[in-house]
Amino acid sequence: MTTVRLWTDQDAAGDPVVSRIFADIRATRKSDFINNIWRGLANNPALLERTWANLKAVMVAESALDPLTKELIYIAVSTANGCGYCVHSHTAAARAKGMTDAQHGDVLAIIAMAAHTNSLATSMQIPVDPEFLQPGR
Amino acid sequence: MTTVRLWTDQDAAGDPVVSRIFADIRATRKSDFINNIWRGLANNPALLERTWANLKAVMVAESALDPLTKELIYIAVSTANGCGYCVHSHTAAARAKGMTDAQHGDVLAIIAMAAHTNSLATSMQIPVDPEFLQPGR
Amino acid sequence: MTTVRLWTDQDAAGDPVVSRIFADIRATRKSDFINNIWRGLANNPALLERTWANLKAVMVAESALDPLTKELIYIAVSTANGCGYCVHSHTAAARAKGMTDAQHGDVLAIIAMAAHTNSLATSMQIPVDPEFLQPGR
Amino acid sequence: MTTVRLWTDQDAAGDPVVSRIFADIRATRKSDFINNIWRGLANNPALLERTWANLKAVMVAESALDPLTKELIYIAVSTANGCGYCVHSHTAAARAKGMTDAQHGDVLAIIAMAAHTNSLATSMQIPVDPEFLQPGR
Amino acid sequence: MTTVRLWTDQDAAGDPVVSRIFADIRATRKSDFINNIWRGLANNPALLERTWANLKAVMVAESALDPLTKELIYIAVSTANGCGYCVHSHTAAARAKGMTDAQHGDVLAIIAMAAHTNSLATSMQIPVDPEFLQPGR
Amino acid sequence: MTTVRLWTDQDAAGDPVVSRIFADIRATRKSDFINNIWRGLANNPALLERTWANLKAVMVAESALDPLTKELIYIAVSTANGCGYCVHSHTAAARAKGMTDAQHGDVLAIIAMAAHTNSLATSMQIPVDPEFLQPGR
Repeated sequence: MTTVRLWTDQDAAGDPVVSRIFADIRATRKSDFINNIWRGLANNPALLERTWANLKAVMVAESALDPLTKELIYIAVSTANGCGYCVHSHTAAARAKGMTDAQHGDVLAIIAMAAHTNSLATSMQIPVDPEFLQPGR
Repeated sequence: MTTVRLWTDQDAAGDPVVSRIFADIRATRKSDFINNIWRGLANNPALLERTWANLKAVMVAESALDPLTKELIYIAVSTANGCGYCVHSHTAAARAKGMTDAQHGDVLAIIAMAAHTNSLATSMQIPVDPEFLQPGR
Repeated sequence: MTTVRLWTDQDAAGDPVVSRIFADIRATRKSDFINNIWRGLANNPALLERTWANLKAVMVAESALDPLTKELIYIAVSTANGCGYCVHSHTAAARAKGMTDAQHGDVLAIIAMAAHTNSLATSMQIPVDPEFLQPGR
Repeated sequence: MTTVRLWTDQDAAGDPVVSRIFADIRATRKSDFINNIWRGLANNPALLERTWANLKAVMVAESALDPLTKELIYIAVSTANGCGYCVHSHTAAARAKGMTDAQHGDVLAIIAMAAHTNSLATSMQIPVDPEFLQPGR
Repeated sequence: MTTVRLWTDQDAAGDPVVSRIFADIRATRKSDFINNIWRGLANNPALLERTWANLKAVMVAESALDPLTKELIYIAVSTANGCGYCVHSHTAAARAKGMTDAQHGDVLAIIAMAAHTNSLATSMQIPVDPEFLQPGR
Repeated sequence: MTTVRLWTDQDAAGDPVVSRIFADIRATRKSDFINNIWRGLANNPALLERTWANLKAVMVAESALDPLTKELIYIAVSTANGCGYCVHSHTAAARAKGMTDAQHGDVLAIIAMAAHTNSLATSMQIPVDPEFLQPGR
């Protein structure tokens, strides 16, 4: 049902870049599970390598935001972009990082609230208040 | 440049619902400033009232997420929905609630990362891994 | 296949807010059928309550637009937002309120026409004609 | 500020297709005003011709929906697609066809309501209820 | 699972417009296969006729772009618009017109790259550089 | 008017990563001009570095698609995502790489055609034809 082939571990073994990235995904996540998007990206090893490197830099490396907050933001963007696969995978990731049902409920409420006011601002073509424009920006 | 009239405080004084909501916005935010979206919504007092009530319930009331995290999620959704007004207003709100430049940078990086993988999952039509489907849901 | 649990009637019976809202949905719609989105929202009773209250105010209460016109607008927004569930549920609702096949065909034609000119205006970055900006707005 | 040239009436006079379409727009609308999107489309006369022919067939010709309802649907789609130009031009068109402030307010409320539930259905990945699937479709 | 009936060839035989368009689709594509979107559009014969005429003019007729490049652009737009059906049908069409796996991989990489920078430009609300505004446009 | 500061060359000189990337942008493009998105991304040097590295890999390096085709796809995605900045910058880039007015017109026509059929497929919830699903994928 995909538009590309999903690579099995056996397929991956035949390509040095793919096998290296799959191994790094497993080592980084401390899990043998490799989800489908990486198996699809394997068709373009360079794209697989760049995407995984970026994901590690953004989502795994130490940063100014904690890991769970990052996943909540990921769920929010994925919902707004209408990506069902991504909503599923990052909701699972958020749960694995400790998201409670109450937090999940709050995220859904904020996503819906933002969609509500986003469309109101667009339909009324509201101009940005000068107060929101900061000096020197 | 809007498609509706932006109500001044003088206009608001002439409508009991609008003047009550404007007063509550000021009291809740402890600021005299009322930004443009509320002045646009004043054209439909019932819509103004419901939208403000929901925003208070979602963004102001105590919840399972802290106020800054909520604003970061709001920025993320507003970006994905392409609402310039909302990106501006909620970036300002997040700064007012303590968002650092480093946190802002991280939010932008996650939004971009999610947009990247969202479009990859959609273009490859990746099926949801059974591991993401939990029993009883 | 959802990211949250869909509440059965038995589950709902155990929560006073959810059971009250489910009863009101049934009374308002004069039907025993409660569709899945409400069963999903039950995980966050406050969000369920607010969403249903808003939907009643917007879609059920007397207003300046007739019930069928409202559903046609809802179908249009749901299509543009790419929400398959919402396209299905509001197409069914529109049929229940009397939408003919000819009216449905016209709605689809307008949605497609608007998507067509929307993308043309965006790709050419067309400035708003001064004639569309009204005095005092 | 556009990515293409906006054709003046003098420019249009030099191209037989563009001058014919501009004349038909004026005759159809009983107005000398030609808004910017048509002046941008003039750069590709065949695209101008097809787009105008489709718009006439969908929005001007007799159909199962009245002219005002069509414009309300057009506003809704344009908002959901984030096209500022289109929101402006079709809000002006709707007013010209008799849209009252109350009706406009209702349209905005429905658009926002739909955006709200659309994002909830997507974030929860709600499956379509079997009751919405009709036999023979 | 559709919101409209998908017309069989037997259904089409009963409507002169639909049967004529179906015959033209087959003759143009030199194939007996008529994919589902045309069978859905048959419910509104005028919309079917216009949509097919436009598709022929844009995608089949000689133009300044070669047939494969057109399909790659179609895949890109369909992905950004989140239309799974269209991603599938135009990926198949691109393969039929000679798209290699390497070209497909490149298209996916560009789509993802564009989604990435699109969201960054929106989240930072970057103003258009004067250098991008050309004289006389 | 941005939500972040746009770095001048003087600002860039004070950060080793930013000054290195700015120098590489200039060397790669053989032009002194650095457009605003990079000046905004400078606020997060790591994000600037990753984004530029990816853009070079996708858009500048040799690949299975020629440079102009890549820009046409970028314009298409940027339009569908509603990013005005990106539509402007990549339309300028495409012109610099030889895009003719006729080719530009064709791209706009395909974008609009795709938006048209995308919304029709979504509004009718058309199922993917089995013929589009290939064995082994």
